[in-house]
Amino acid sequence: MIVVMEVRATQTQVDSVVNFFTDRGITPLVLPGEDRTAIGIPATLTTDQRTSFEAIIGGMEGVSKVTQTSYPYKLASREWHQESSVVQVGKVKIGKGFTVIAGPCSIESLEQMRESAKIVKESGATVLRGGAFKPRTSPYSFQGLAEEGLKILQGVGKEFGLATITEVMSPDMVEMVAKYSDILQIGARSMQNFPLLVEAGKSGKPIFLKRGPSATIDEFLLAAEYVLGQNNAEVILCERGVMPLDRTYTRNTLDLSAVPVLKEHSHLPVIVDPSHGTGVAKYVLPMAKAAYVVGADGIMVEMHPNPTKALSDGSQALNPEKFSQLMSEIHRLEAALG
Amino acid sequence: MIVVMEVRATQTQVDSVVNFFTDRGITPLVLPGEDRTAIGIPATLTTDQRTSFEAIIGGMEGVSKVTQTSYPYKLASREWHQESSVVQVGKVKIGKGFTVIAGPCSIESLEQMRESAKIVKESGATVLRGGAFKPRTSPYSFQGLAEEGLKILQGVGKEFGLATITEVMSPDMVEMVAKYSDILQIGARSMQNFPLLVEAGKSGKPIFLKRGPSATIDEFLLAAEYVLGQNNAEVILCERGVMPLDRTYTRNTLDLSAVPVLKEHSHLPVIVDPSHGTGVAKYVLPMAKAAYVVGADGIMVEMHPNPTKALSDGSQALNPEKFSQLMSEIHRLEAALG
Amino acid sequence: MIVVMEVRATQTQVDSVVNFFTDRGITPLVLPGEDRTAIGIPATLTTDQRTSFEAIIGGMEGVSKVTQTSYPYKLASREWHQESSVVQVGKVKIGKGFTVIAGPCSIESLEQMRESAKIVKESGATVLRGGAFKPRTSPYSFQGLAEEGLKILQGVGKEFGLATITEVMSPDMVEMVAKYSDILQIGARSMQNFPLLVEAGKSGKPIFLKRGPSATIDEFLLAAEYVLGQNNAEVILCERGVMPLDRTYTRNTLDLSAVPVLKEHSHLPVIVDPSHGTGVAKYVLPMAKAAYVVGADGIMVEMHPNPTKALSDGSQALNPEKFSQLMSEIHRLEAALG
Amino acid sequence: MIVVMEVRATQTQVDSVVNFFTDRGITPLVLPGEDRTAIGIPATLTTDQRTSFEAIIGGMEGVSKVTQTSYPYKLASREWHQESSVVQVGKVKIGKGFTVIAGPCSIESLEQMRESAKIVKESGATVLRGGAFKPRTSPYSFQGLAEEGLKILQGVGKEFGLATITEVMSPDMVEMVAKYSDILQIGARSMQNFPLLVEAGKSGKPIFLKRGPSATIDEFLLAAEYVLGQNNAEVILCERGVMPLDRTYTRNTLDLSAVPVLKEHSHLPVIVDPSHGTGVAKYVLPMAKAAYVVGADGIMVEMHPNPTKALSDGSQALNPEKFSQLMSEIHRLEAALG
Repeated sequence: MIVVMEVRATQTQVDSVVNFFTDRGITPLVLPGEDRTAIGIPATLTTDQRTSFEAIIGGMEGVSKVTQTSYPYKLASREWHQESSVVQVGKVKIGKGFTVIAGPCSIESLEQMRESAKIVKESGATVLRGGAFKPRTSPYSFQGLAEEGLKILQGVGKEFGLATITEVMSPDMVEMVAKYSDILQIGARSMQNFPLLVEAGKSGKPIFLKRGPSATIDEFLLAAEYVLGQNNAEVILCERGVMPLDRTYTRNTLDLSAVPVLKEHSHLPVIVDPSHGTGVAKYVLPMAKAAYVVGADGIMVEMHPNPTKALSDGSQALNPEKFSQLMSEIHRLEAALG
Repeated sequence: MIVVMEVRATQTQVDSVVNFFTDRGITPLVLPGEDRTAIGIPATLTTDQRTSFEAIIGGMEGVSKVTQTSYPYKLASREWHQESSVVQVGKVKIGKGFTVIAGPCSIESLEQMRESAKIVKESGATVLRGGAFKPRTSPYSFQGLAEEGLKILQGVGKEFGLATITEVMSPDMVEMVAKYSDILQIGARSMQNFPLLVEAGKSGKPIFLKRGPSATIDEFLLAAEYVLGQNNAEVILCERGVMPLDRTYTRNTLDLSAVPVLKEHSHLPVIVDPSHGTGVAKYVLPMAKAAYVVGADGIMVEMHPNPTKALSDGSQALNPEKFSQLMSEIHRLEAALG
Repeated sequence: MIVVMEVRATQTQVDSVVNFFTDRGITPLVLPGEDRTAIGIPATLTTDQRTSFEAIIGGMEGVSKVTQTSYPYKLASREWHQESSVVQVGKVKIGKGFTVIAGPCSIESLEQMRESAKIVKESGATVLRGGAFKPRTSPYSFQGLAEEGLKILQGVGKEFGLATITEVMSPDMVEMVAKYSDILQIGARSMQNFPLLVEAGKSGKPIFLKRGPSATIDEFLLAAEYVLGQNNAEVILCERGVMPLDRTYTRNTLDLSAVPVLKEHSHLPVIVDPSHGTGVAKYVLPMAKAAYVVGADGIMVEMHPNPTKALSDGSQALNPEKFSQLMSEIHRLEAALG
Repeated sequence: MIVVMEVRATQTQVDSVVNFFTDRGITPLVLPGEDRTAIGIPATLTTDQRTSFEAIIGGMEGVSKVTQTSYPYKLASREWHQESSVVQVGKVKIGKGFTVIAGPCSIESLEQMRESAKIVKESGATVLRGGAFKPRTSPYSFQGLAEEGLKILQGVGKEFGLATITEVMSPDMVEMVAKYSDILQIGARSMQNFPLLVEAGKSGKPIFLKRGPSATIDEFLLAAEYVLGQNNAEVILCERGVMPLDRTYTRNTLDLSAVPVLKEHSHLPVIVDPSHGTGVAKYVLPMAKAAYVVGADGIMVEMHPNPTKALSDGSQALNPEKFSQLMSEIHRLEAALG
């Protein structure tokens, strides 16, 4: 932490800052400058200290600004954990090769999930998705099949030899969802639902954490830190689009540069969701290929056996043909570049 | 709903859209234009229909865009409920006059809350705030006193004759928090935590709903709709700042024009939180006065008996003197303009 | 400037950074930390050095991040110029008291400007605005009367004893516009049109600089710095709304906390434009009052003698009655609080 | 255009809207709905009419909202011009194959440009870039060699058989820049500098138009419309990153989904600038490959023979090795997918 004083800060003001730290057993280094003084804190602070010290010091007389010199996350950081993590789910290794997670937005029926799983399996994808509880923006929209849906997902996953993933939306549901699904998804709107992060972390299941639409990279990695802090090392990050400039043509702005940024600063696997990331089926294919070439560890795509009948998010789901095309273009990229 | 066809849409494509609606017993009106055809849907659609029809039609061949002609919220809308709502909590009427909610970010001790309540009471404010479970961005920060804190809040509220408000963070905590607090706060990060909205709504308690940092006005009112849909008419809206252009000088951008916008389109009371809205104590006073003159029904401010000792958000909390100054400036505005 | 090294940075990497500075005659201070080393640069760097050093050092091996410890602007900064500046235009003193600038978006005719000026004058406002060259988003919209319009503005200003302001859009027009108008406005879209800033600065006229819709506070003050750097101290800052979350209810988000932020960090007068800041006539009045109470030095409002006939921006212009109401509410605030 | 009335709109209010149009010789269609009435305007409006009618009608009593049913741009639109445009510059065809534009941010010397051109040429890229007038955010940064630089660019371009591109920043410079450079670049900060768009358009030279950091797709295409409206069909669009959520890791957020969106709605070629789009050299390579797979017509990259000595934007420029690697990876993609 570096405390920068104002140009006209008095010696007494500088001393107050220095004393604040020495009172706490920390020896600051004073850097006199031509215009102003800076005070460096060489010790490693806990995040608790960082936050409260910044607040207190920032409010002291004569202080111009307080700057953190280290990143606020640690368990998620590649600085402290250099090898890339691989999250293993049955035979699927997320973080090794390119993993495709696919399936409908919502679980509607056994038949729909079996049809979906068949297509997913044949295409070479390895993880089946489907929502049992849908967090819809409007209270009047379709809300999901709940436990009934979870059973369908589990059964179909086993039948087709696919790992499964579904979203959990509140801490009291973690236990039930963990009973049926291989991976627990934390949705973008829940990225900072801290009780949920903690509870999901405790389940010991792999956690698929989606970036919130206005979350910075640091906020995203701090959310991962909550899960990792529960002695759960199985965290998968997912970029799914950030707030767009306008919503005329796409529902979100898929932030693909977040992939190399996350891969550089964290050891966790990174998946891209081009379906929610654009909100429009026809843009899913190009953005999925882009995810591949920027170094993502996989994609999550919405696919529906019959998208115009889909009970939710129909406009962004691929139909089986488009999904097959996507898979064959991904295979072509793998063959050429892998 | 209006469906606008592409310039080169064929008659068959127009017919497909028309048939989609007639198949569902809805008679569309076809508006031939010079360049392109538009198709109007005069019927009132349910929100479910709006969403799924938009998705399906938007994906049909020859369709250029689909436009909704009505607002997606209804219970929260002033179009359907013309008189302004007043939420009554004991003797406090939120939505009538200007209500001040104040207190520390976190409940730290009985002594701290008694000191706070004394200052709040003497200043003429009527609602005491304090957090028992703090949703901190970082897992390493202070996390709150939990039920112990709720008991302190309740006791102190009674002792000083102040209504109380505190945040509830997950559905399974609603019952406990509702036992102690007069008003339940849904934090900005939970604005789209739908299971929580539903559960809080069911409690029958007044719900204080904070706008998410990237939530549009429509998304905010739809979140309110979730609560209202539980037969709970006691919803208070709170503007607390949206995502800033940068975070160098303020933590958020307080969107004060949201106040007249919300008052026009909704009948619900609107409170402004200038403490989180700016994140900086010295900007709280001017923004609080601005909240008054733009027509807010009140403010929520962080005040701490000794802010440099505060265990969370110290830099944005007012000290007792600054809080007194704020209250006297508000009283001056009331006297002059009220 | 502080250079923070990576956790695993080698001594050689630290030395390279140190040598970079000693080679340039600057003596850095090395702060060894528990985890990582930081290197402080106590000298005052020129902005040129700041920028290029940051780029070069930021790219060196072992460097984690480079942090600037001082603000990038200097002439605009209150740190270096403590008294608030007042820009005098005839008898009008911008920065002393509360200045109201009003008039139509576009100059349409002599008659329209005379009608406008009469209303402006009678209300007690002191500066008349009107656009002669309109920067419309669409090339097909009304584009202004050009020099003909400037002559009307000048004549009407003199007739009614009002100072005048109009926008200049390109460097080659500065001379002509400066011949007719008392104040030169640089529009939000031109805030980083550097050749225009320089040319306008050189004119010696007071410059009214609007904040760009995505400009940070630092970028805004750096744009002011361009003008001030031409030995022109007469700069007025104008907050006019930043990019909104969505455009359903307002065209921009008026960032009122920018007023106290700018007043704290700069000595220049700050005006608020609630007309462009909201884009909707009915929200202009509350936001104008809010501008007053947050400490702005004035407002710029669009007023049109007959807004439904206005050739541009009709929906945000006040009609004469609403403008009179606004002025009487401002006078009431002045009487009560001034 | 569709005018949607409020739920409680009276018949008189509906009639006023209808009369507004019939007075102007336009016959509206009234769509009575269950809750509210909508009024459709089947005629093709000019953009001028669209804008002014929307403003006027939007302000009328009883009107809830006004929705445009067609896109505001026309010359840039693929609806009106179905084949993809190719901009030819000497032997270079932008819009056919994948064009690489490369070179330093600023022209510093003849030697530096010759070195750059040699590397560019050998790699197979075909257009040489370099800035003679640099629009720096800070007035204290390096500002460019001006006409001297333009002569260097032209000479080196001819010597190495490369087309050339450089930025023009004000209308009065268009003539001079057009004398030396094959393509005129309009920078992101100038995207809505309308006098410059008009003047550049009139030059008859190909115009390379960068998207502004907060420009929506519609605003971007309307800016292109200004140039096209000068009877200049040679417009190239460039996505170069939009405003980021924060600036900790990248300077902008490269909006790659804008590529398929622009290719769908416009016939103009689309180039991606991953250098400014990320602001960090190490992210240029992955984002350049992503630009290829999403369907861009090319990339513009900053390359400097010796980036740590670069006088501007050093941290985002590739060194010759990294640039060669980028070109060979692009060639590999072309071979595999082209």
